[in-house]
Amino acid sequence: MDQRISQIKQVAILGTGLLGTSVALGLKAGGYPGRIVGVARRAETLEQARAAGALDHGTTDLGEALADSDLAILAVPLGQFDRMFQAIAEHEHDGLVLTDVGSTKLSVLAAARKHLKHPERFVGAHPMAGSEQQGPEGARADLCQGKPCIITPGNDTDEDALAVVEAFWSSLGMTLIRMSAHEHDAQTATISHLPHAMAVLLVLVAAERGGLDIASTGFRDTSRLASSNPPMRADILMANREQVLDALTTLGHRLDRLIGVLDQNDRTGLTAMLEHARQVRDGWLAEREGEMTR
Amino acid sequence: MDQRISQIKQVAILGTGLLGTSVALGLKAGGYPGRIVGVARRAETLEQARAAGALDHGTTDLGEALADSDLAILAVPLGQFDRMFQAIAEHEHDGLVLTDVGSTKLSVLAAARKHLKHPERFVGAHPMAGSEQQGPEGARADLCQGKPCIITPGNDTDEDALAVVEAFWSSLGMTLIRMSAHEHDAQTATISHLPHAMAVLLVLVAAERGGLDIASTGFRDTSRLASSNPPMRADILMANREQVLDALTTLGHRLDRLIGVLDQNDRTGLTAMLEHARQVRDGWLAEREGEMTR
Repeated sequence: MDQRISQIKQVAILGTGLLGTSVALGLKAGGYPGRIVGVARRAETLEQARAAGALDHGTTDLGEALADSDLAILAVPLGQFDRMFQAIAEHEHDGLVLTDVGSTKLSVLAAARKHLKHPERFVGAHPMAGSEQQGPEGARADLCQGKPCIITPGNDTDEDALAVVEAFWSSLGMTLIRMSAHEHDAQTATISHLPHAMAVLLVLVAAERGGLDIASTGFRDTSRLASSNPPMRADILMANREQVLDALTTLGHRLDRLIGVLDQNDRTGLTAMLEHARQVRDGWLAEREGEMTR
Repeated sequence: MDQRISQIKQVAILGTGLLGTSVALGLKAGGYPGRIVGVARRAETLEQARAAGALDHGTTDLGEALADSDLAILAVPLGQFDRMFQAIAEHEHDGLVLTDVGSTKLSVLAAARKHLKHPERFVGAHPMAGSEQQGPEGARADLCQGKPCIITPGNDTDEDALAVVEAFWSSLGMTLIRMSAHEHDAQTATISHLPHAMAVLLVLVAAERGGLDIASTGFRDTSRLASSNPPMRADILMANREQVLDALTTLGHRLDRLIGVLDQNDRTGLTAMLEHARQVRDGWLAEREGEMTR
């Protein structure tokens, strides 16, 4: 474990849901020798995270948790970021480095800049690890292991804070990818928010047209993300509204094209589309070999 | 095992790919005492099916296989059905009962009526079991176990043939669902062909907009069907063209609606859509409890 992390005496996990608790478990599994403090609004959530062996201490008092922490991970749902940055600002000390797990980055960065005394010591991150499950009971020490983590420093980001945050996510076994917050939001709209939206659309079409009685594994896999938490997902889609709209518009164009080749009985054009898609996906899978199964 | 099946001396599997070989393996695993003959165009395919323990005999000679068989399962890709029905008609004897595994049913029924001497002894079936894999090496004795199998008899279907075919698919542990060929095609357009088309569209949008470097399990699951065999899938989409076009058009309307709520910043409307989709999917999963995982 990088000395930058092992020398930190206390890390605060702000929000002990699935991801926050998994981060704490992963930190412990990686041999972090310091103290891990969890903060949540509900004592029950803290109790579950403690029972999972993720925390040395749990508290509903943010000020208490931040006072002795040199690093804090903001792991609440996106809809709570604004409120949380406001609350953090009240207890912010000069030595504190902040990072987060938010699914969008421009909106998070804007909230950090708006509220924090030292926004330059906040380094946005997006660990690309999750599940349609929720809550600490679904947490796993290896949830982040081997997955990409996007880091989105800005021009004003403090160099030391950046080094600490990158060392932190590396210590969980994640592969770091640096990009701008804008680029992050454009790419996640495509590979994360769009798949979710499409799963929702598929289920809505099935509900309208019928056929669920005979649906099998293909439908199950393609629709899996539609079981994600609606208010949390609505927050993400709204926070990344422009990019999601752009991705959905591109989808509309591709859909029109597919309808066109079918309408014209164009088997060659249809096969070419399917072939292109298979090549792209299989190429992508080949590059990810070992990281994930088919 | 139903006597209607155990008393049959020989069953012919016409096409020993993934599904044909799995059917043969499942029949053997269920204790079928008779002989299983496989037919394929390539000796290599037959050899693989034989090596998997699925066949008592393999031949490239359709006439030889049908001569002593009382039941034949047509398990070739959809694009070969027309040619196969023509070939079967040349060797068709009065005792032969025929069923199939084709992914569409109106087109298959039309081909059977066009070519067979006794189309009333052909009973269309669609075992809803598959994989994006291909070939006998991916075959499994339990591929059909616990999955739905749609049976699409017509007004002119022979009662005895129907009884044999239903007993056959039941013997593989499948849950039978009877419906008209038209209803089958409408429903599979929604829960099978549409998910495939959407997986293809998702990959094409991702290829256009970028972001694959950071794509993770959500993208993988939602795009899985895009790795299916393009010519085979093109045949299915073309064979069920009208219903697929109808499903894609419904998708377009739902997409417009989603774009609308996002464009209008309508968080309530968006959350309601996501909530509806989650309720439908989770309700569907709850009904399928035990049959499949999330």
